[in-house]
Amino acid sequence: MPGNSIGLLFRLTTFGESHGAAIGGVVDGCPAGLKLDLDAVQLELDRRRPGSTSLGTARDEADRVEWLSGIHEGITLGAPIAFLIRNRDARSSDYDALKDIYRPGHADYTWEGKYGLRDHRGGGRSSARTTAACVVGGAIARQLIARNGIAVQAFVSRVGDVILETMPADLSATWANAARCPDSAVADRMKALIEAVRAEGDSIGGIVSCMATGMPIGLGEPVFDKLDADLAKAMLSINAAKGFQIGSGFASARMRGSENNDDLHLGRVDEDMQGLPEGARVQRPAVRSRTNHAGGSLGGISNGEDLAFEVAFKPPATIGKAQRTVNKDLEEVVLEAKGRHDPCVVPRAVPIVEAMACMVLADHVLRQRTARMAALGAV
Amino acid sequence: MPGNSIGLLFRLTTFGESHGAAIGGVVDGCPAGLKLDLDAVQLELDRRRPGSTSLGTARDEADRVEWLSGIHEGITLGAPIAFLIRNRDARSSDYDALKDIYRPGHADYTWEGKYGLRDHRGGGRSSARTTAACVVGGAIARQLIARNGIAVQAFVSRVGDVILETMPADLSATWANAARCPDSAVADRMKALIEAVRAEGDSIGGIVSCMATGMPIGLGEPVFDKLDADLAKAMLSINAAKGFQIGSGFASARMRGSENNDDLHLGRVDEDMQGLPEGARVQRPAVRSRTNHAGGSLGGISNGEDLAFEVAFKPPATIGKAQRTVNKDLEEVVLEAKGRHDPCVVPRAVPIVEAMACMVLADHVLRQRTARMAALGAV
Amino acid sequence: MPGNSIGLLFRLTTFGESHGAAIGGVVDGCPAGLKLDLDAVQLELDRRRPGSTSLGTARDEADRVEWLSGIHEGITLGAPIAFLIRNRDARSSDYDALKDIYRPGHADYTWEGKYGLRDHRGGGRSSARTTAACVVGGAIARQLIARNGIAVQAFVSRVGDVILETMPADLSATWANAARCPDSAVADRMKALIEAVRAEGDSIGGIVSCMATGMPIGLGEPVFDKLDADLAKAMLSINAAKGFQIGSGFASARMRGSENNDDLHLGRVDEDMQGLPEGARVQRPAVRSRTNHAGGSLGGISNGEDLAFEVAFKPPATIGKAQRTVNKDLEEVVLEAKGRHDPCVVPRAVPIVEAMACMVLADHVLRQRTARMAALGAV
Amino acid sequence: MPGNSIGLLFRLTTFGESHGAAIGGVVDGCPAGLKLDLDAVQLELDRRRPGSTSLGTARDEADRVEWLSGIHEGITLGAPIAFLIRNRDARSSDYDALKDIYRPGHADYTWEGKYGLRDHRGGGRSSARTTAACVVGGAIARQLIARNGIAVQAFVSRVGDVILETMPADLSATWANAARCPDSAVADRMKALIEAVRAEGDSIGGIVSCMATGMPIGLGEPVFDKLDADLAKAMLSINAAKGFQIGSGFASARMRGSENNDDLHLGRVDEDMQGLPEGARVQRPAVRSRTNHAGGSLGGISNGEDLAFEVAFKPPATIGKAQRTVNKDLEEVVLEAKGRHDPCVVPRAVPIVEAMACMVLADHVLRQRTARMAALGAV
Repeated sequence: MPGNSIGLLFRLTTFGESHGAAIGGVVDGCPAGLKLDLDAVQLELDRRRPGSTSLGTARDEADRVEWLSGIHEGITLGAPIAFLIRNRDARSSDYDALKDIYRPGHADYTWEGKYGLRDHRGGGRSSARTTAACVVGGAIARQLIARNGIAVQAFVSRVGDVILETMPADLSATWANAARCPDSAVADRMKALIEAVRAEGDSIGGIVSCMATGMPIGLGEPVFDKLDADLAKAMLSINAAKGFQIGSGFASARMRGSENNDDLHLGRVDEDMQGLPEGARVQRPAVRSRTNHAGGSLGGISNGEDLAFEVAFKPPATIGKAQRTVNKDLEEVVLEAKGRHDPCVVPRAVPIVEAMACMVLADHVLRQRTARMAALGAV
Repeated sequence: MPGNSIGLLFRLTTFGESHGAAIGGVVDGCPAGLKLDLDAVQLELDRRRPGSTSLGTARDEADRVEWLSGIHEGITLGAPIAFLIRNRDARSSDYDALKDIYRPGHADYTWEGKYGLRDHRGGGRSSARTTAACVVGGAIARQLIARNGIAVQAFVSRVGDVILETMPADLSATWANAARCPDSAVADRMKALIEAVRAEGDSIGGIVSCMATGMPIGLGEPVFDKLDADLAKAMLSINAAKGFQIGSGFASARMRGSENNDDLHLGRVDEDMQGLPEGARVQRPAVRSRTNHAGGSLGGISNGEDLAFEVAFKPPATIGKAQRTVNKDLEEVVLEAKGRHDPCVVPRAVPIVEAMACMVLADHVLRQRTARMAALGAV
Repeated sequence: MPGNSIGLLFRLTTFGESHGAAIGGVVDGCPAGLKLDLDAVQLELDRRRPGSTSLGTARDEADRVEWLSGIHEGITLGAPIAFLIRNRDARSSDYDALKDIYRPGHADYTWEGKYGLRDHRGGGRSSARTTAACVVGGAIARQLIARNGIAVQAFVSRVGDVILETMPADLSATWANAARCPDSAVADRMKALIEAVRAEGDSIGGIVSCMATGMPIGLGEPVFDKLDADLAKAMLSINAAKGFQIGSGFASARMRGSENNDDLHLGRVDEDMQGLPEGARVQRPAVRSRTNHAGGSLGGISNGEDLAFEVAFKPPATIGKAQRTVNKDLEEVVLEAKGRHDPCVVPRAVPIVEAMACMVLADHVLRQRTARMAALGAV
Repeated sequence: MPGNSIGLLFRLTTFGESHGAAIGGVVDGCPAGLKLDLDAVQLELDRRRPGSTSLGTARDEADRVEWLSGIHEGITLGAPIAFLIRNRDARSSDYDALKDIYRPGHADYTWEGKYGLRDHRGGGRSSARTTAACVVGGAIARQLIARNGIAVQAFVSRVGDVILETMPADLSATWANAARCPDSAVADRMKALIEAVRAEGDSIGGIVSCMATGMPIGLGEPVFDKLDADLAKAMLSINAAKGFQIGSGFASARMRGSENNDDLHLGRVDEDMQGLPEGARVQRPAVRSRTNHAGGSLGGISNGEDLAFEVAFKPPATIGKAQRTVNKDLEEVVLEAKGRHDPCVVPRAVPIVEAMACMVLADHVLRQRTARMAALGAV
């Protein structure tokens, strides 16, 4: 059953196993006439790359995007945009010891239970390496939604018990440290914790927060394809993600309506940027919220406020400590894993969360073009 | 843009506005030859019905399912199963006062911003009344997955600060009280809290927990259509849902791998029940987990353990207290809402969470039939 | 497996068996703000209705559309438009004799071979009665594409050996005669042939031609979802259809390129009508064809010329003459069918062909809104 | 809008322009555990290759498939199978003269009208070169359906006025001659005609016939996704295809029911081959037709008889003769085309027709696995 595509109108299909010839993807549905900055795409991929932060796996992949189709003289043709990334540093022999053993917390035996066989090398198709293709798709989507004035930024807001309590106004420091946290003092504590956990042969979980600014009113479908629902699916499709919340999220479970409701007032929103010269900005009066407990979505439809959501990631399953498990002969054994792995996924998950969010937003920006008879102002 | 369907192989399309002629749905993809217990479907719908618990809205709808197609002599034909539920107690005039005002926390102005016009009566298509069609679809799905030995049960685990700390072994008490909590003592405290909040003209949030037992190994696609991802989307598509977590979820953000990983051992799982006489149960040896921090899914694929996830619901937006808002003429006004509304949605959300889970599982049970060349043992 | 929907952005899902409670459908994706003339929808349905022409079956169904959702004060809400048509004159007992026998040329044993059981009454879901829901969907689509200046007209161009050699400039006479042929002299000969065939207890095939005027340049996707391909699928999904051709079609197999190519010249096309007052018409210079062997599509994309295609229908399978067949006990028997059936389907197929064409065009009109970055001139 | 995928459960997405870096595709949904003969895939591609027949274009492409993912040790993993074919002999400068001119019969101005820009080199994405990816997808599908005992064979049955009147029992000679016609005498006449047309600087149309043997009862969905409808769409999506007919097709328009109906008798069909050792063949009693005017499908569902359909192809639009046309400045000009082109597409269309048919059948073989509750006998 096909399950390797995401999005309806802006649609990414990915392919590739961790230690196969290549990973890659096809973006189908990107409108014609989008001038793409391919260096910017590569830059985003570099941020996810193994080795991009001192906190990640030691696997070293250049991860250069090779463009195959859909772009002519730097501009999208309306045809599918295919790309690939070669697997170079695939030390598959590292995984020989894992060929016949099921690692706790991994998809080894669920994949095999599903399909009857598997590619054990580096996790095969279940490897987080496959998210590189999502980053490329997301980088294209980001350039598309930028034309509507939308920007997406994610950052690490928690590692274990180290928490970013206050979001800085300026998120630009996020990429300046290995922890991908916009507050450098908190980032230092996160780094120290991750290093300590690594030294113990253990791993640790965390949270990535994400926001989108410049949101119009009207993105999202009111019933099943709510903006929140599509974001939730996109986020839970990231390896190791175990939770999603938007706005006050789980905290709203203990709140009163009088506390959680966002009072409305008369404000302004940007008009659609599309077709306008870059930098131009036209605003119109609109209903706005005084607070943002909703996280930017009401009834599944964006309300013009910043989109704000969080994704929880579990600690990576591969650790150096001994674990009880079972092998292919269904014998109970003890595993002490080797190989190159992350002690904490959240720093490297930041560009992936951004990418998935950009794709969901691009999809809904295009969907919104068909929502009404009359020409659309806001999107 | 079509956004009123969910599922790929077991696919529900819903229709209807709160105060239109009817709501309803079409289930397309239900296999032929399923003997349906239509009374059981009605029973599930009754559990969601306004008035089904003393804690809900006073709107009184008989909510009788009228079956239109797809069933012949009690057995599914393989043809689409269409059904409708008439709107009877639609006191639309109650909403006249809301025709020109945007309610805080509601989809009024996002819908209008999206589509350029709206049906203001009772929230129109954005009303939670539309979830009745989901309950019918879910009830059909439940009967389908029961043939595979899968059972789904949800319950209220939190209302405000009243928390169900320990899940009882026996969940059967869930339907015996208005709070839909399997521990009657906790249920009483929840009821008291909800009544107190109602008396204040306020509302309160909560959490619904859900589990599925009898899970095979192998449900879910490994990349975008992970079982967790499809569940997250289905849950976030429920009105007022703001968060989803599976297994240790957000708690895993503060955990170590050595703590969160589930050790594996040699156990047993049920063989596929399909085709076997009801009640028959055949087991085979399989890899099993000693704990269930994963919540029943690894790498997006079910691992044979119970599925365990939670959904956070915000407090209902309609409250009796005065709120600052904006009207259609873009004037800032104060709203004091009237009408019949729930002080807390979680008791009535329980059957909806179950229904969405049943549909996601039915979809993946069918998808799994195409996963491999050889005949499937587990599904 | 769901197979009861057609279209991606303008999407119709149908349901219902010939002798069940009702047939109907759900249109999902119709943009908000379309003012619908519901009487015009009913008029189109009347044209397909059993008994609408003297040449059809004697089954008498009022076939009144009951609207369930998606329309408020005569205008589409952006929500799914659900409707149903009750089955009233369902003389199921007529079919008792057919319960245990497989009719040659019918889906009786293929349905049963597929699903393992069937509703034998009136052909169940395989009955052409289900196309009434398509006519309703098509009538909505027609009103949508009319806003883009597109009009669709079909007519009978052949019954047996009676052929409409020259298409009249004025097609308005099509609905004035029972044969649905715009040339009244040819129509008389068709009627005479059909009556003669009926008197013999036999049936006869025919061809429906269809054209769309006011076509923009740009509808259709260049690879798999070519306009021609989607039309072919839509037409072959009509009961009894056995062939589709566009432009010179099968005749092009014997032609030279120098003969079949359409020379180009500088002409004009209508600008997009959308948003303009009805009746307004603005034109711009454009590449046009001197002839129309292409039938209005090049490389799967409309070229601004009239769309022109034909659909071949087989003679109805149910005839009064004795036929050799097999019964449910796999005994070879002789069948002499009774019941009310059409001696020729093409007159009643005319509104169905139009409806399917309207839906394909509506789908592609909406798809075209997402084809490029810049605002679209032509569509 | 995504339009570069075909199939629901066996799903091919293609990418690539004629003169870009590469063309290729991704097959998503191929079940795990299929042992693939990759040499056989290459052999099929060689049959479509430019230069594979003396009657085609002189463009010389090695067209070697490069496999990127989804196959491990020769067996499908259940993961997407990605592949690419490099464009090597892309003499784009040949097309410089065509940069600013719209060729009659080509998609030049429809593509540009749709997207606002185009890649003029070799037709870009509109080039028939993109069908190479379909041939690869079809070759995989062929190996899948072979496990169900289904075989697909196409051949040229008409070129201009040279017609294959009688289909030989043995189709194996099809690949032995450049005309791809199984009757060598007819093939010689076809070749002579094509060479004569080429010498004139002209082109000619033709018909490809296709049949599938070993068909089970039950493939195809009864309403919109009829087997015939999906075949029609797949065939009309091939470049230059202008018509499709199944069974007696357009000829049925002049037939009586008593003549066109296929009498039924008691015969046998093969049981599902899946899971049985290759070569094993088990049969069961079944309803069979004495004739095959239906072409193997009744009510959109396969009836166990051979599938038999035809596809009409127009003469290639690029000819050496002078043609009147329009350039980008909207000036009327005369075009005398140069470059390497086929005088007749049908010989090279044969493997493409087969490939598309194999993919449609593979899709429906998988869909049929979800049609009923009980394990399926026939599929």
